[in-house]
Amino acid sequence: MFAKHFSLSNLPYGIATSETHYRPSIVTRVQDNVYFLWDIVEKGLLNDDISASTAQTIQEPTLNAFAALPRKERQTFRSVLQRALKEQISSIPTECIEHIDNVKMHLPIKVGEFTDFSCSKEHQYNSSEVGLGTRRLPPSFANYPPAYAGRASSIVVSGTPIKRPKGQYRNDKGEAIYEPTQALDYELELACIIGKPSKLGEPVPASQALDHIFGIVLLNDWSARDMQAMEMLPLGPFSSKSFGTSISPWIVTIEALEPFRIPLPTRDMPVAQYLSVEDHLKSSYDIQLKAELLNEASLTKTICESKFESVYWSFEHFVAQQTVSGAALNNGDILGTGTISGSTRESLGCLFELTRGGKEGYKVEGEDGERTYFRDGDSIRISAFAGEEGAGVGFGDCTGLIIS
Amino acid sequence: MFAKHFSLSNLPYGIATSETHYRPSIVTRVQDNVYFLWDIVEKGLLNDDISASTAQTIQEPTLNAFAALPRKERQTFRSVLQRALKEQISSIPTECIEHIDNVKMHLPIKVGEFTDFSCSKEHQYNSSEVGLGTRRLPPSFANYPPAYAGRASSIVVSGTPIKRPKGQYRNDKGEAIYEPTQALDYELELACIIGKPSKLGEPVPASQALDHIFGIVLLNDWSARDMQAMEMLPLGPFSSKSFGTSISPWIVTIEALEPFRIPLPTRDMPVAQYLSVEDHLKSSYDIQLKAELLNEASLTKTICESKFESVYWSFEHFVAQQTVSGAALNNGDILGTGTISGSTRESLGCLFELTRGGKEGYKVEGEDGERTYFRDGDSIRISAFAGEEGAGVGFGDCTGLIIS
Repeated sequence: MFAKHFSLSNLPYGIATSETHYRPSIVTRVQDNVYFLWDIVEKGLLNDDISASTAQTIQEPTLNAFAALPRKERQTFRSVLQRALKEQISSIPTECIEHIDNVKMHLPIKVGEFTDFSCSKEHQYNSSEVGLGTRRLPPSFANYPPAYAGRASSIVVSGTPIKRPKGQYRNDKGEAIYEPTQALDYELELACIIGKPSKLGEPVPASQALDHIFGIVLLNDWSARDMQAMEMLPLGPFSSKSFGTSISPWIVTIEALEPFRIPLPTRDMPVAQYLSVEDHLKSSYDIQLKAELLNEASLTKTICESKFESVYWSFEHFVAQQTVSGAALNNGDILGTGTISGSTRESLGCLFELTRGGKEGYKVEGEDGERTYFRDGDSIRISAFAGEEGAGVGFGDCTGLIIS
Repeated sequence: MFAKHFSLSNLPYGIATSETHYRPSIVTRVQDNVYFLWDIVEKGLLNDDISASTAQTIQEPTLNAFAALPRKERQTFRSVLQRALKEQISSIPTECIEHIDNVKMHLPIKVGEFTDFSCSKEHQYNSSEVGLGTRRLPPSFANYPPAYAGRASSIVVSGTPIKRPKGQYRNDKGEAIYEPTQALDYELELACIIGKPSKLGEPVPASQALDHIFGIVLLNDWSARDMQAMEMLPLGPFSSKSFGTSISPWIVTIEALEPFRIPLPTRDMPVAQYLSVEDHLKSSYDIQLKAELLNEASLTKTICESKFESVYWSFEHFVAQQTVSGAALNNGDILGTGTISGSTRESLGCLFELTRGGKEGYKVEGEDGERTYFRDGDSIRISAFAGEEGAGVGFGDCTGLIIS
């Protein structure tokens, strides 16, 4: 159903297996066809226009080595591949191709570390209003993108069921109880994947950050709000956000997104030198996001439609802030945007905002009464595309079924 | 100078190279002699009493595979090694041995993820008093050990210089500036190293945690207090603690520490089931810690002497809290205790406490005037031993020189 996200202008990378390709392999996707890239390289269909070092990385079972190639080398490969697919897509042998329904998609990258930023002003305003009773930004929000380190071992690929977590939280009387969460939520996010690593003690300024970013994925930062409320002070989120974080299987390259670059929101105040981007007018992306709830009876409701353009800080800023004090980037690191919310009720990127902390319900057509947080058996699908839907560059979807 | 920490009762594990052993190899230490274990195994000096799978792991360049062995298999190896060294230490060929001064010690483990807990009540009381003006514990301190995810790629082995980080913090007027930190601090900690991994969605209760803990190291969680003050709200520490975290090169096994197990502090309130330990009376350790400052002129001052026994939560609790909501343990994960402080001025495990946020100085004999946070050229050494100093089970030291 997302065939139109995958035109020849996209060519995202993923890892797939199929009946004929039992070993995890690097693939790309055009419409609903999945192309096994090593097969194509091996058959000489890229006219030997790619380097030996690139070819080497295409044989790997993850995208890490390919992502770590110099940006130019990756760009060359992309151009060669794009040309080959454009000019001779019908002559590619069928054994290099599978229909999307016949492959199993895997985590596209061996994850390094995971950092989640929190860069939507609307999300910050709404969260503080619901959680703290006052509508305000964190004190340093305009100075740098706020962030916390998440749990890398909890990153799973779209389609992996999410077990309702058990943990401690306070009931209505304020007593701590140890029970399955009653406030299971999602967070609608994008995330960038780091290709080229950096060294400890050598910060990467925002102006050089694009060299390190391989591409972008969808990310759902599942959260247990009751557990979160209990643990936030003083060290931030921990158990409430480490039981599962879903990412989409297709990494959309920054090259594919290049035509969709748009200005960042206006700065509230000048930024420090390391956060200056080369071209402030091109540091954000025109990306539309959506979240849908599918209940056990397959009734569907769109619970959010929002835009990336409202996010205050860019991926380049994330890289700069991650490394400002000297931390090294790893190949395979994932840096998330935080919940992407807009200013209307229809554009709130998590249920904490939509239900005002579980206090206001919303209706799913066909269900009795209203509901707040997720129920067992709910499936949540997030999806996104760049520009207009017909532009042909999308992320597909990222789904998760909630189990008890 | 730490020879007495390494009796035959200790036998910690590390990774070393030397002129004759250019490949990183698994070693142990007795007094000031470093024993290359694969040499010893290969020469049949352990009388073939160890399994093929154990032997396999001893050839590795890190301790990860060995640490992941079933606990019983590691215990068997330890017994066999201990017996061999006791009975025939003088007959071990010299090519298996190097003096400690002739080896280079490396990071003992390929680090998985890093979580730092914060479990010293005194540290919590003092920090809140200095930082917030009120002497209190975090609201959920008695419910579970507070924690945040740290930066694994910043973990370095003892001896690695620590670059004074640059970042944003507020000056006396409250203006954000982007400068090298003026409040560089240490934190005196221990940390456990995870051997056996666990699976996503399968929490490990405290009662089963010891199966997953390989051993204990010293940890110095270097911190930039000015940067930390600016970023704590709302997501906790990030750039202020990710520029370098030092660990000692010797992993002291939990088997070596077994004779030093002591009761945990009395609980303030009952704990949830998953935090119940098998034997509450044996969940802490009798370990004495020390921090020393060596200035550029080699003048030395002991800045802290504290005891692990005052720490409220145990390593078993860390494992349980890390996994409670379902997060998987990785082989090579590091779980730190947080600053270990006592109740006297001589037992405060970081300068934030000792100097009350940089406001009260202390004297280093031979220096003009008083000082607060660290200066470039300072070297900080933390060390620890179990039981009495003569008991023969210590951690050696963990040092770091501050450079500009």
